[in-house]
Amino acid sequence: MPHPATPPSPFDAVPANAGAAAAAGAPRPGPTERFAARTAGMTASEIRALFAVASRPEVVSLAGGMPNLAALPLDTLAAEVADLVAREGQVALQYGSAQGVPTLREQICEVMALEGVRADPDDVVVTVGSQMALDLVTRIYCDPGDVVLAEGPSYVGALGSFAAYQARVVHVAMDEHGLVPDLLRDALRSLAAEGIAPKFLYTIPNFHNPAGVTLAVERRAEVLEICASYSVAVVEDNPYGLLGFSGHTYPALRSMDRDVVYLGSFSKTFASGLRVGWALVPPAVRDRLVLAAESASLCPPSFTQMLVSRYLAAHDWRAQIKTYTEAYRDRRDAMLEALATHMPEGCTWNVPDGGFYVWLTVPEGVDTKAMLPRAVTARVAYASGTGFYADGFGSRQLRLSYCYPTPERITEGVRRLAGVLEAELDVMRTFGSPARPALGGGPQAPSPHTP
Amino acid sequence: MPHPATPPSPFDAVPANAGAAAAAGAPRPGPTERFAARTAGMTASEIRALFAVASRPEVVSLAGGMPNLAALPLDTLAAEVADLVAREGQVALQYGSAQGVPTLREQICEVMALEGVRADPDDVVVTVGSQMALDLVTRIYCDPGDVVLAEGPSYVGALGSFAAYQARVVHVAMDEHGLVPDLLRDALRSLAAEGIAPKFLYTIPNFHNPAGVTLAVERRAEVLEICASYSVAVVEDNPYGLLGFSGHTYPALRSMDRDVVYLGSFSKTFASGLRVGWALVPPAVRDRLVLAAESASLCPPSFTQMLVSRYLAAHDWRAQIKTYTEAYRDRRDAMLEALATHMPEGCTWNVPDGGFYVWLTVPEGVDTKAMLPRAVTARVAYASGTGFYADGFGSRQLRLSYCYPTPERITEGVRRLAGVLEAELDVMRTFGSPARPALGGGPQAPSPHTP
Repeated sequence: MPHPATPPSPFDAVPANAGAAAAAGAPRPGPTERFAARTAGMTASEIRALFAVASRPEVVSLAGGMPNLAALPLDTLAAEVADLVAREGQVALQYGSAQGVPTLREQICEVMALEGVRADPDDVVVTVGSQMALDLVTRIYCDPGDVVLAEGPSYVGALGSFAAYQARVVHVAMDEHGLVPDLLRDALRSLAAEGIAPKFLYTIPNFHNPAGVTLAVERRAEVLEICASYSVAVVEDNPYGLLGFSGHTYPALRSMDRDVVYLGSFSKTFASGLRVGWALVPPAVRDRLVLAAESASLCPPSFTQMLVSRYLAAHDWRAQIKTYTEAYRDRRDAMLEALATHMPEGCTWNVPDGGFYVWLTVPEGVDTKAMLPRAVTARVAYASGTGFYADGFGSRQLRLSYCYPTPERITEGVRRLAGVLEAELDVMRTFGSPARPALGGGPQAPSPHTP
Repeated sequence: MPHPATPPSPFDAVPANAGAAAAAGAPRPGPTERFAARTAGMTASEIRALFAVASRPEVVSLAGGMPNLAALPLDTLAAEVADLVAREGQVALQYGSAQGVPTLREQICEVMALEGVRADPDDVVVTVGSQMALDLVTRIYCDPGDVVLAEGPSYVGALGSFAAYQARVVHVAMDEHGLVPDLLRDALRSLAAEGIAPKFLYTIPNFHNPAGVTLAVERRAEVLEICASYSVAVVEDNPYGLLGFSGHTYPALRSMDRDVVYLGSFSKTFASGLRVGWALVPPAVRDRLVLAAESASLCPPSFTQMLVSRYLAAHDWRAQIKTYTEAYRDRRDAMLEALATHMPEGCTWNVPDGGFYVWLTVPEGVDTKAMLPRAVTARVAYASGTGFYADGFGSRQLRLSYCYPTPERITEGVRRLAGVLEAELDVMRTFGSPARPALGGGPQAPSPHTP
């Protein structure tokens, strides 16, 4: 096919009316380069862009959210999966229903019961990781320009899906008890004054990614009431709920309100590489979600679903989660101890009671995104805060993940990061404010514990 | 949460401005029922709606497109997958890259080479079945209202994805040699006269679903030239290309033009329940496709990709495809023989040279969609033709799949279908035209062989 004389860069924005221009004989992009308007909002997340460098063995990566699978009983799983293929291969290797394997949907209800959720397996839709559930929920709710509320900061993968459907994100700040109900009410009131009714509140109530905080139990009913009074749906994303260090769980928002759209995942409690997640939704949503799932991938893999189902049936998965959680607690402790020992004055952070993440605020004047290349040069990687905001905030924050490296590596990584920060601060003290000023501080991190 | 006094039916269309109405205090749908405008185009396909009844054991289903996996070497596969978990479990059960496992992408290039495609593994994006590739390609190309060209009839799953992104489908008819170049040119000329530049041509060149025909080799360059002259991208969907009964393959459109977006799948040549497909795309498309894949599901399952990779490396997969193809040829022969023996006068159909499907045209006055419940009562199921058109055509056509049932069941199914058709024709002869007149004949089926 003929190419235009100057091929457009793959990152050039393509005007939405490029087709009409082509028909009128104006200079036109090549046929494979006339993309949808939504592609303008698709940008590589800072975290993803970082993975290549950060995955070099000499770099301590505190950037990713990969679960630590070292405790998985691989030999037992190997026997299980071999039996699955030998005995049920004709089903496991064949197309299945778009909604997911029925037995697994029943077991998913048992998993959710640990957080007080009473659910009908008919209302569960199995997806390719909860990311797909999130993407499909956005697909069925959001027209371009629709508003979605989300905590600030919020999960980077959610921001990616919202951008893909051209939804606008309005952040609501958190404190050490999670989303602040008064600020949620204020945001809804301001939007209503503009005639805007947000489609849903996207919230991660437990062991938040990236903020590490948990929505206080006494706030949960209030958040639901506020959303109901503004006719705003609630999407509860709960991948970490069973990974609490105190050994107890919190009541899911869905346990208090059957209209909540609940997203769950086996990525953190069993194995992320199987990509098995789910949505629990009211029936009117379910019918649309199944249709959306069908057009997205026909059906989730029968094979991985049946493997998860066998794992849940044959193994003490609660004990496995306990094993995982103990490993994460040890890593969290190592990180907190290293932070207290090494971080320069003026840094603050929270103490997570579960999950994978510490959210760190650095002294004013330091820009965590600008600092990242210097950190990687010093062989430590983190996720800079701006990736977790849709609006450019977060330049004074960064996320540290303690889920994957060993405690020794975590300690060493924090020590290196502290050195990088000290060097930044030295430069600032010598030359005044940095050449490239930081973009405000952003909404402050959840009321942090000063070391 | 409070419900509105009369909850809307889950199938009511919801106005796009429902949010504004709610803000203004007008009667409003419940918070979970304010869906995006695109959901109006999401309807259960006739084929899917049928699966529940058609899957009863007494019904011979000629409706589905499930591959026959009876020939798979399950014991060997069981040993392979056990070894995968035991030796590489820490990688196979962990998150992977959004683009897919590198080794598998190299092997995919070897598979495509069988149809003349020379490709760089860097341009391959692994997806959750080729359905996801199709969905994501539509996501990056189509704004609401954009036009997509497709053969008439076309793959029902493609029509579903196009509807989900609110694209408008313009069908181009086929004859026994596939898509008719002159009609493609006519369609493009008419659209250009309206100022419309379609985003892409979606085509299934080999053993078409549902029409069963193959695009003649001498037409392929012409189709590519026509699309290039109108600056229309070409999306080539090729799940059946290696399943030809004559034992040879056809050159892929992608082998003639590196700008073609090529979609492939292991669902028909290995195992559909693993949901491993791919897209081979030009680099500018790849970067966007990977971002879209990331927001859709983060990454495809490492586990199923690594299993496919081991299968390709350790087994004679070409011999396995030959075994599959021989089984499908036997079934095709059984279907053709039964059609010739039993079908009433006035029915016509094509003779597929590969793939899974026979496309049948029934005598004028018979409506295949209206007849379907009577067929299921007579214990045979098929896919009525209207599901394969975006514009209501196809009421005189139906698709018969010979892929899954045994030859004996196929013969019995066709015999039952012939009986149902005879009964319809009897009613018509006695009472004149049927109570519910058929919607035109639609574009005629590919020039069929009369029995």
